[in-house]
Amino acid sequence: MVIVSKSTMNPKPENTMPDSLPVTISQQMTLLSAIRSTDDLKKLTIAELQTLADECRKEVIKIVSLNGGHFASSLGVVELTVALHHVYSTPHDKIIWDVGHQAYVHKILTERRERMQTNRQFGGLAGFPKRSESAHDAFGVGHASTSISAAAGIAVASDLAGGDEKVIAVIGDGSMTGGMAFEAMNHLGDLKSDVLVILNDNQMAISSNTGALRHHLVNISLNKTYNRARKLVWKSLSLLNNGLGDKAKKAVRKIEDGVKAALTPGAFFEALGLRYFGPIDGHNMEQLVKALKEMQTLPNPKLLHVITTKGKGFKPAEENQSKWHAHNGGFDTTTGKLLKTADTSLPPKYQEVFGEALVELALKDSTITAITAAMPSGTSLDLFQNAIPNRFYDVGIAEAHAVTFAAGLATQGFKPVFAVYSTFLQRAYDQLIHDVALQNLHVVFAIDRAGLVGEDGPTHHGAFDLSWLHAVPGLVIMAPADEQELRDMLYTALYEVKGPVAIRYPRGNGTGITLHKKFTSLPIGKAVMAREGSGLALLCMGTMTGKALEVATILEKEEINATVVNMRFLKPLDTEVIEELASRSTHFVVLEENSAIGGLGSAVIDHINSKGLNRPVLKIALPDAFVTHGNMNALYKEIGFDTPTMTEKIRQFYKEGQK
Amino acid sequence: MVIVSKSTMNPKPENTMPDSLPVTISQQMTLLSAIRSTDDLKKLTIAELQTLADECRKEVIKIVSLNGGHFASSLGVVELTVALHHVYSTPHDKIIWDVGHQAYVHKILTERRERMQTNRQFGGLAGFPKRSESAHDAFGVGHASTSISAAAGIAVASDLAGGDEKVIAVIGDGSMTGGMAFEAMNHLGDLKSDVLVILNDNQMAISSNTGALRHHLVNISLNKTYNRARKLVWKSLSLLNNGLGDKAKKAVRKIEDGVKAALTPGAFFEALGLRYFGPIDGHNMEQLVKALKEMQTLPNPKLLHVITTKGKGFKPAEENQSKWHAHNGGFDTTTGKLLKTADTSLPPKYQEVFGEALVELALKDSTITAITAAMPSGTSLDLFQNAIPNRFYDVGIAEAHAVTFAAGLATQGFKPVFAVYSTFLQRAYDQLIHDVALQNLHVVFAIDRAGLVGEDGPTHHGAFDLSWLHAVPGLVIMAPADEQELRDMLYTALYEVKGPVAIRYPRGNGTGITLHKKFTSLPIGKAVMAREGSGLALLCMGTMTGKALEVATILEKEEINATVVNMRFLKPLDTEVIEELASRSTHFVVLEENSAIGGLGSAVIDHINSKGLNRPVLKIALPDAFVTHGNMNALYKEIGFDTPTMTEKIRQFYKEGQK
Repeated sequence: MVIVSKSTMNPKPENTMPDSLPVTISQQMTLLSAIRSTDDLKKLTIAELQTLADECRKEVIKIVSLNGGHFASSLGVVELTVALHHVYSTPHDKIIWDVGHQAYVHKILTERRERMQTNRQFGGLAGFPKRSESAHDAFGVGHASTSISAAAGIAVASDLAGGDEKVIAVIGDGSMTGGMAFEAMNHLGDLKSDVLVILNDNQMAISSNTGALRHHLVNISLNKTYNRARKLVWKSLSLLNNGLGDKAKKAVRKIEDGVKAALTPGAFFEALGLRYFGPIDGHNMEQLVKALKEMQTLPNPKLLHVITTKGKGFKPAEENQSKWHAHNGGFDTTTGKLLKTADTSLPPKYQEVFGEALVELALKDSTITAITAAMPSGTSLDLFQNAIPNRFYDVGIAEAHAVTFAAGLATQGFKPVFAVYSTFLQRAYDQLIHDVALQNLHVVFAIDRAGLVGEDGPTHHGAFDLSWLHAVPGLVIMAPADEQELRDMLYTALYEVKGPVAIRYPRGNGTGITLHKKFTSLPIGKAVMAREGSGLALLCMGTMTGKALEVATILEKEEINATVVNMRFLKPLDTEVIEELASRSTHFVVLEENSAIGGLGSAVIDHINSKGLNRPVLKIALPDAFVTHGNMNALYKEIGFDTPTMTEKIRQFYKEGQK
Repeated sequence: MVIVSKSTMNPKPENTMPDSLPVTISQQMTLLSAIRSTDDLKKLTIAELQTLADECRKEVIKIVSLNGGHFASSLGVVELTVALHHVYSTPHDKIIWDVGHQAYVHKILTERRERMQTNRQFGGLAGFPKRSESAHDAFGVGHASTSISAAAGIAVASDLAGGDEKVIAVIGDGSMTGGMAFEAMNHLGDLKSDVLVILNDNQMAISSNTGALRHHLVNISLNKTYNRARKLVWKSLSLLNNGLGDKAKKAVRKIEDGVKAALTPGAFFEALGLRYFGPIDGHNMEQLVKALKEMQTLPNPKLLHVITTKGKGFKPAEENQSKWHAHNGGFDTTTGKLLKTADTSLPPKYQEVFGEALVELALKDSTITAITAAMPSGTSLDLFQNAIPNRFYDVGIAEAHAVTFAAGLATQGFKPVFAVYSTFLQRAYDQLIHDVALQNLHVVFAIDRAGLVGEDGPTHHGAFDLSWLHAVPGLVIMAPADEQELRDMLYTALYEVKGPVAIRYPRGNGTGITLHKKFTSLPIGKAVMAREGSGLALLCMGTMTGKALEVATILEKEEINATVVNMRFLKPLDTEVIEELASRSTHFVVLEENSAIGGLGSAVIDHINSKGLNRPVLKIALPDAFVTHGNMNALYKEIGFDTPTMTEKIRQFYKEGQK
């Protein structure tokens, strides 16, 4: 066993980038330790490359076991990554990793091995490829299905500039279900630029991959009939060819071409103008290197179909790929067993409360349907999937379709609930406006991961939803202050609202409040008093209510008696409560975990202006900037969302006005 | 010739819905006149259906020649529409028309014939199917590629409810290039619900269709080789089958299955789990009815490939399909010649000024590239396409891909300009944030059709862009007050800004200002004074500056001396000018043609609040509601954007404060 410093055993360390790294971690990894740059990979034999891959795999297991992170995806592409860096030369050649949670081996091999222990930590390496981090990261990623588009753009740039770099997009079969991957291939097939798309086919998105294309891919990879059929048909065609005249031969040749195209196993990709190659075994180094070298010499767009096993080489992950998609760390690197027992005293997560509440309601109401875009476990809709499979729909990584599919259901009197991460719903903004809101359809958007998400960073922070939802006419927008309110808001969204409605709630654990079995209807557009006071009014959205109460308790000792109002709704806004508060407050503070632009703060200031109430308003909101990655405490401190800073801001604001 | 009332000859009539319709229009259409409901179509023979189709075609030509509207698409689906209503029974069965500009015949046949002359007029019929207009409109449309998603939702609802309605999505080959159509098919193929997708293949989007899939479709429809190959291979396989043992026979049968699947011409669709049928001639009534009847009895998802000619039956449109996609009306119904000569005295359109300026700049700068999502003529990028074809990219109806493709280009030092309608960019909001802004890439968004667009209505009004762009960190957002400023803003976006930048400008003609050849850099984030005054400050975004100057001129007579400021930038906001104005103004008015929520008005009010400037602000903006369709004057009047109403609002606001 390798010895590591104790501090790195903490799955979510408080600190920023550690100064001294436990270099002992990889003493036994002789080949990996010898790699100084990707150039060094060029000289290795196939056997050495496989040894290097084995070492990389161990390294990934070690890193994630220490600090957590995305896991099974990187294990699946160890051999592929080593082979890519053996054949291609980054940063001259460009490799674009779709989503990017499979890029750990890439990072290890591209001069970031020592820093990998800071992965996803505040001030450390990002969990995804990032242009500002390394020249080897050709394109920053995080959301699915972008890689072929970016690769097409880079390849076209190379065409225009007369460059000779090779451009490779590595995309999973899950990401392939996203519409923009299709849009990109359709364009790329027309462009004829030299892009190699590597389809990393592990039959999984984050959970089990979905959609009809999956069957097509399974057919290709499992059925030997395709290949046998091909051979047989060639043979029969050449038999037919015997004894024909020139004209007839030409005709047969044309037929052959047609048959050839049609008989290619990757007919789907060929139809989009990409030459299809494969499938090959993504864990066979020799096959990989041979195939990639062939690809390197072929012009025009092409697709190499590589079959991999998510979690490869780590048995627990191979056996439960979804569970091991990401891990918090702190497990045995052989057995996968947790080294510390999980803390069961924590309150339930918001997503769990949501998932359970939805099942409770749907068991009594057969019009409720649940929709996810490839996130059944992340959103806790897996509870629904298990309980009521016939009304559960996983549409693939296809948020745009999900929303309009929901709209279709709603036209027929069903109540679709689309549970989706805040940043991913950005992909269906048009559909939300054009297909749902414009038709005033009763679709419930359960917007998960609203606010900061921590280690996943800026690609995943739900920092803008209140801003872009706010402008949508007729949309009811709410945010629960605790998990009980989440239950009641879900109930209210289903039974009191008749049109489009959004509930936004954060990642992570609730407040621990005791949950009632009973659901309560909340009055639409009505705030609720959380603390009576005067002079200073704190108006809050969602879980900021808890923070505001903390601040109020501190200020009480200084004889500042703040009112705390849980606004509950951004839209319709409770304008009455604002007017009532103005009668007893000289100062307003609005607290929301959303961009400072266009959310609750702006709404309150707008109303104060329109009524001529003349009260200064302090906004406490996310900055108008992309917030980095790291644990929540570090991020909150960074942006001044920690209780002391927040209290001090409010104190200053209030006292200045008192002068 | 049929006699029509003179008023209806006006291509863009001022009025709202005409009370008395010129019923003489269709005196000679005996069969069409006899149709009272779609039930009546059930009894007709094939010959009668064709006669009815011919009459419908004439009716469409007549209607568009009078009032304008979308044209060539409806002409292409006359037979298909008649056949659909012969075979299926709406509103029980559901037909979803993708985009919907091809649905005129559907509207004529579904009890709206008499009202078709009010098409697209204020208070009249919408230019697209609309649920609130007719039970026969199963789903409201306007944007491309939504139909299969909606159909899937409706079909699933039918499955759950145990209904027996048939669900049909009619989608053009252009719309098929949109990612969400792919997402929907991938899901639908998995669902196995009974949906018929009709691929209306006219090899055109609005302009010529683009993308690799097009070639696949052309191959299918033009090459007879597929069918010949199929027959040949069957024959050779059965020859091989002779004299084999049982086990071998079974093997060959398996091979046959594989070959069969692979040899289907619509391999692309089959890969997505849709059974493929066709191609058939979309102007052959007998083939259509026969095929649709067959489809009606088949369960599960299937696709019928129908070849049509856009503009069919109207020679000028057949010969120039792109030009005749939509028409303003006022043409001869046989020759297509304009009955009135076009008014050449009008100032150039914003889009023309943009297109020309971009070409001027790109001829001198080889890093400039132009991207459109199937809108070369609408955005005037056709000028670029003609002048510099090697740096022009039409990516298909694929806004999401377009943005990330642009991001890819930008990483390599190119300057991509994506010209796109405001509402369509809603489809790429995530890509704008995640792929462009987060990486601070220099991509120029030329946002066309910002503000109201008139007759196309709420699906096409660019009513929200300032709101959802505003929250994007680091994005520079500007709007020109006139066409000269548009030129200078484009120049500024290309040469002064180093990151993401958006310029939003309206549909239609400019102010007529004299254009300089020379381009001028505008200082980033700096407003410009349009009229010096005091007391009242009017702060304007874009073309509202002209309106504000009109208002100021009127108010001058009343001894109100308004300052008019062209803010030019929403982001970065010119906070200095706001503070300076506060020193000489008691009242602020913000004018913007964007939702009242989250745009310039909110930004100004926020700043006034944060600086404690204590000045009341009146927002003059679009309402927080979907604005209907109709000509611009009618719409402006409806929402109080006409000069008298606007002046009165400002006068009242100013005077009340003076009390």
